[in-house]
Amino acid sequence: MEIISGGVTAPKGYKATGIYAGIKKKKKDMALVYSVVPAKAAGTFTTNLVKAAPVLWDKKIVEEYGAAQAIVINSGVANACTGALGVENNQKMAAAMAEQLGLKAEEVLTASTGVIGAQLPIEAIKEGCKLLKEGLGESAESAGLAAEAIMTTDTFAKQYALTFELDDKQITIGGMSKGSGMIHPNMATMIGVITTDLAISKELLLEAIREDVKDSFNMISVDRDTSTNDSLFLLANGMAGNKEITQKNEAYAVFKKALNQVTTELAKMMASDGEGATKLFECSVKGAATKEQAVILSKSIITSNLVKTAVFGNDANWGRILCAMGYAGVPFNPDKVDLYIESAIGSLKLVENGMATDYSEEKATEILKQKEVKAIADIKNGDCIATAWGCDLTDKYVYINADYRS
Amino acid sequence: MEIISGGVTAPKGYKATGIYAGIKKKKKDMALVYSVVPAKAAGTFTTNLVKAAPVLWDKKIVEEYGAAQAIVINSGVANACTGALGVENNQKMAAAMAEQLGLKAEEVLTASTGVIGAQLPIEAIKEGCKLLKEGLGESAESAGLAAEAIMTTDTFAKQYALTFELDDKQITIGGMSKGSGMIHPNMATMIGVITTDLAISKELLLEAIREDVKDSFNMISVDRDTSTNDSLFLLANGMAGNKEITQKNEAYAVFKKALNQVTTELAKMMASDGEGATKLFECSVKGAATKEQAVILSKSIITSNLVKTAVFGNDANWGRILCAMGYAGVPFNPDKVDLYIESAIGSLKLVENGMATDYSEEKATEILKQKEVKAIADIKNGDCIATAWGCDLTDKYVYINADYRS
Repeated sequence: MEIISGGVTAPKGYKATGIYAGIKKKKKDMALVYSVVPAKAAGTFTTNLVKAAPVLWDKKIVEEYGAAQAIVINSGVANACTGALGVENNQKMAAAMAEQLGLKAEEVLTASTGVIGAQLPIEAIKEGCKLLKEGLGESAESAGLAAEAIMTTDTFAKQYALTFELDDKQITIGGMSKGSGMIHPNMATMIGVITTDLAISKELLLEAIREDVKDSFNMISVDRDTSTNDSLFLLANGMAGNKEITQKNEAYAVFKKALNQVTTELAKMMASDGEGATKLFECSVKGAATKEQAVILSKSIITSNLVKTAVFGNDANWGRILCAMGYAGVPFNPDKVDLYIESAIGSLKLVENGMATDYSEEKATEILKQKEVKAIADIKNGDCIATAWGCDLTDKYVYINADYRS
Repeated sequence: MEIISGGVTAPKGYKATGIYAGIKKKKKDMALVYSVVPAKAAGTFTTNLVKAAPVLWDKKIVEEYGAAQAIVINSGVANACTGALGVENNQKMAAAMAEQLGLKAEEVLTASTGVIGAQLPIEAIKEGCKLLKEGLGESAESAGLAAEAIMTTDTFAKQYALTFELDDKQITIGGMSKGSGMIHPNMATMIGVITTDLAISKELLLEAIREDVKDSFNMISVDRDTSTNDSLFLLANGMAGNKEITQKNEAYAVFKKALNQVTTELAKMMASDGEGATKLFECSVKGAATKEQAVILSKSIITSNLVKTAVFGNDANWGRILCAMGYAGVPFNPDKVDLYIESAIGSLKLVENGMATDYSEEKATEILKQKEVKAIADIKNGDCIATAWGCDLTDKYVYINADYRS
């Protein structure tokens, strides 16, 4: 498996671009990802009861057809809580993009991200669809423009691509995602697009992405707020020329592994770019009786405001980690817990059997000062493990969200 | 029912004080509440699996004896995650206080609040017990010293007292509480002490407090972090001379109502004094099919970091409120929701049937600029209602918690 530069245009037969349509102030606000041939399409979407108009549209397409040829995305306005007019505007956005590309509206997936409650400026969107068609390109730069155009409070564009061999064919997977606030994915993340030239049945494509998000996007959290717009798309256009994967054979396993590398790396980029964050905070819980218990405990730790502020302050206040585990609702024996922290400069055991070791506070602070820090809790109750990714909670998070709309 | 000044010494037969024992730096750090006669004692405690040593001690006393005559409390060190030595130290604290007061250790309840993981400085504690005995007084000032000594990051001491007539006898209830961070009570709050001179059976006293916290302390949250030390105590020494309440009669109902006023007011003081908070944020959800659903929805709103930062920024970003309701896991129809905001200067309907009204953003900001703001969501799905109290999330919360231990 080889990591390559680029994003959604890395696999064969994909084009993309990002443009400024006038929805946001002066920043790119529309993106298009296009497959030159029809592609199998899978997706997972927010579990929030309040679902944005594009989510309703996409769920139908993914579940009824399992195929699409384009994804059009706008940032600036989320088209959520917008009633019948929002649904109508979303349909118009799909239709306008389809017209430009010579497709049917149902072959175009849609996504919106930004302020909840505002209506899409539909004339600007229609104009934007024209510019998107004109701007389409298959270079890495084109993929970069798309990744940039879906950003809201993100501070960098998130892309990842890798390639591997299967049946003597070169298979490539590329992806982009956005998300910085209102990030606590449940079934999918804010917006993510993964493209591949693999040939695979639509059933297995959907199963692959549904399984995958449990270990990747669903394991990150910035602020425990599950968005109204979470959408993750996976397109597979078959242009790599491999024998179509229709069973859970070895080829499927290879694809799953490659897919997981792409999704996990994108998820980690999102967590590290959490609103106002200064560092990526990874937490593994091992020795759990079940995977589910490890998931609940690790997510409880990375979502605790008190743990997150301590990480910001480079303070090894491990009591808050045990506290967050204790209220997670999972049975374990606090008196058996070992706890370690770790980063590029070293590792330190803070807690043994539920009590502090005589660790050096200075060394702990040095470890926590790095850009990527890890906590590992061993509850010695079984063989299961889970890893979750979050970020620190900073004064900047507060400033960003106190006046997001102004 | 008449509100009176003072706190835990307001009812007949209670003394209290607060002193500096050297646990914290220069601030009062030990408090004592004492009944001159044995009192019925009830309590509710944290549901966190990680329970501090004093919580284990108190649960046993409350459940096995239902009686006590004193409560000794220290701040600065939480005596949580301290293993067998912590349990031993807690027992020593109870024994030292008992010796001073001429009681058995089992007649003394204990509570600790502060840093998790550190051991109690037991010699300083013993010395403190002497000073507490010497300082005992029954004035409002003495109650104030106790309320001050249990503070950690609190910015003001929290006390409340009221009096009412029952069977021609004057009954008084007084209370104090502390709590500013790690506040998301589940069965009780960080530390609260309620005293009354009412005569009541220990069974009904326990039932009264267990029922009461569901609507008072369990409905507040500062940061969604349920503490390891939450303890709420209720002492009733019978000195008002009323006929002992042994049944759920009208007298019991009167007491429950009075108790709820004390606990709710203390709970609101805690929410308004949340770490770094600039305002109290109250949220009512009405029109719910069940009380439980209204509770879940209202707590989901007041605990959302995104809602809390918007409240800090005086930004009527109502989409975040609907978003927080949507991921709460309760069924309702987003297209039927009405949403209002309210404060001392007026009220405004922001959302009707799930969509924005054409409200004035200027007026919304003016309403949100007040010290106490309310949001009311009507989901039009039934007759049940619940109210929760929280606070805004500010840069100061981050600063307080980034370097809490230094």
